[in-house]
Amino acid sequence: MGGDQGPLITIPSAIKAINQLPHLHLILCGDENIITTELARLKISQDVLSQHKQLSIVATSQTVEMDDKPAFALRSKKDSSMRKALDLVSEGKAQACVSAGNTGALFSMAHFVLKTLPGVERPALISSLPTHDDEKHVFMLDLGANVFCDSHVLYQFGVMGSVMAQQVDGIDKPRIALLNMGEEAIKGSDHIKQAALELADNKAINYIGFIEGSDIFSNKADVIVCDGFVGNVTLKTCEGVARLVYKKSKGVFSQSFLIKLLTAIVKPSLKKMFKSMNPDQYNGASLIGLRGIVVKSHGNANANAFFSAIMEAVKEVERQVPEKIKNSLEQGLSPE
Amino acid sequence: MGGDQGPLITIPSAIKAINQLPHLHLILCGDENIITTELARLKISQDVLSQHKQLSIVATSQTVEMDDKPAFALRSKKDSSMRKALDLVSEGKAQACVSAGNTGALFSMAHFVLKTLPGVERPALISSLPTHDDEKHVFMLDLGANVFCDSHVLYQFGVMGSVMAQQVDGIDKPRIALLNMGEEAIKGSDHIKQAALELADNKAINYIGFIEGSDIFSNKADVIVCDGFVGNVTLKTCEGVARLVYKKSKGVFSQSFLIKLLTAIVKPSLKKMFKSMNPDQYNGASLIGLRGIVVKSHGNANANAFFSAIMEAVKEVERQVPEKIKNSLEQGLSPE
Repeated sequence: MGGDQGPLITIPSAIKAINQLPHLHLILCGDENIITTELARLKISQDVLSQHKQLSIVATSQTVEMDDKPAFALRSKKDSSMRKALDLVSEGKAQACVSAGNTGALFSMAHFVLKTLPGVERPALISSLPTHDDEKHVFMLDLGANVFCDSHVLYQFGVMGSVMAQQVDGIDKPRIALLNMGEEAIKGSDHIKQAALELADNKAINYIGFIEGSDIFSNKADVIVCDGFVGNVTLKTCEGVARLVYKKSKGVFSQSFLIKLLTAIVKPSLKKMFKSMNPDQYNGASLIGLRGIVVKSHGNANANAFFSAIMEAVKEVERQVPEKIKNSLEQGLSPE
Repeated sequence: MGGDQGPLITIPSAIKAINQLPHLHLILCGDENIITTELARLKISQDVLSQHKQLSIVATSQTVEMDDKPAFALRSKKDSSMRKALDLVSEGKAQACVSAGNTGALFSMAHFVLKTLPGVERPALISSLPTHDDEKHVFMLDLGANVFCDSHVLYQFGVMGSVMAQQVDGIDKPRIALLNMGEEAIKGSDHIKQAALELADNKAINYIGFIEGSDIFSNKADVIVCDGFVGNVTLKTCEGVARLVYKKSKGVFSQSFLIKLLTAIVKPSLKKMFKSMNPDQYNGASLIGLRGIVVKSHGNANANAFFSAIMEAVKEVERQVPEKIKNSLEQGLSPE
């Protein structure tokens, strides 16, 4: 039910996903009328649905609104589509939850319903960003699940990010970096310096040191670790800069008739490029560190983007990401 | 002596500045041989120099290197060009110091030599960034002078930023915003929420609330306040995104012959655009909150950029920025 367009986006994405993956089963949680209407619009009748081994509906009476406060949603929306999807994961009836709904509510509910993995202090929001190399991307966490993170939480994020890069991207020894004001060891706050020591101490982690904001996209690291405040501001700043560049480049391209004409030709490519650089638009962000898989799609995701979020969840289920995060943290030389 | 090219950049900029402003006097601090050689290359002989009321040389025997640690520079480079320039400001023989040298060393020395203004807890690095509106920019502070800032320091940065926007840009009631993870009052850390209350309490400040990273360039605020860690990472991320967009756009523009042709036409404009978006490239960053004016030009600034930094210093001298920061902080309803 979540996202700017709700089932108009999520249901076509679901149909596309089950058509592509014959072993995938999707449970659509939400308003039964709206869901069946949308399925009918897509020419999938109740009869077909009942025979359809890959699709089922779990009816709910509530919806978490985009402006609901997390605490309110947690307290008062116990029969919402979001809560039900998380309950199904918690009960073992589903292996992952994918949502385009209210981010804050999803975090609170997921944290409350699923709980963190043994030994995990805080869950983190992780997503991949583009790099200069079209074939590679970089994972960044935390993107906003936590305001402040102490050194041990940052250390754990490094370990969790390493597992994601290994399992989801198949990178053997992912390069882990801490986002900082400078590359030198003396830079930054005490808790970042301490996190650096903890990461360097864990021989299973390929910790490569501090990285600056200017190098996030340079393909120098596979995983970049920061607290949720910095991650959130950084991610949104990227969006702001991309919009600024797009706006300013329009000015450049409207200088003369010839340029205007030629601009019409490259405009679709430029638009596609700017879109591809907004990570939320093409990829889900995952909430990791919990006893279950939760993928958050952007609220204004289109059907392709929501489909990608479903595929991301499938990948994390297949690679058993939560189990491997648990193992990695247990094996790591925990300093405490 | 500072910056990637030292006097080859700083001296031509100085000559340009005194030629444009007949009332400006510049004191060139540094290696006398190198300075006179460069002046000779620019056809300004010793004789002319001695008659030249606008230009003088203060010879120094040391130079702060770009990789000198701040503490080392502070302790061991007491006859460096950087230190001497700051000493001249401290002694009242100069009204501002402009440097393209080692940033960390400049901060430490400036803080040590000039001291903070009465009542100012921490100096801040402030610079202006472009916005969607070509005619307007936005001041952002702190860009890296402090790792962490408590609520009262953030409050003071809001007051100092307001003075800069008023005095340097002539904005009557500058819109002051705090950079945060979201716009809602419940978002962010306790010290940001506390800073918001303090800013809202000061009736002389036009505090407009929280702003997200995506809106830094939207011309919604005239001054954006954050701690030095976030400011530094944000500023450098902008640089990283701009480089990424430039790289990716090259791919878009090399797809066909026609597009290659277009690229050849717009390339200079695009290059100029991307350059204009790197604030350090066209503008100095100012270290404010001290008992004197210090403007930092980017290490790889060209002569135009260093000239802009000199002009920025002139503006701050004419508008008596330090004096006005002191007054504004004294008049503000300080919560302590």
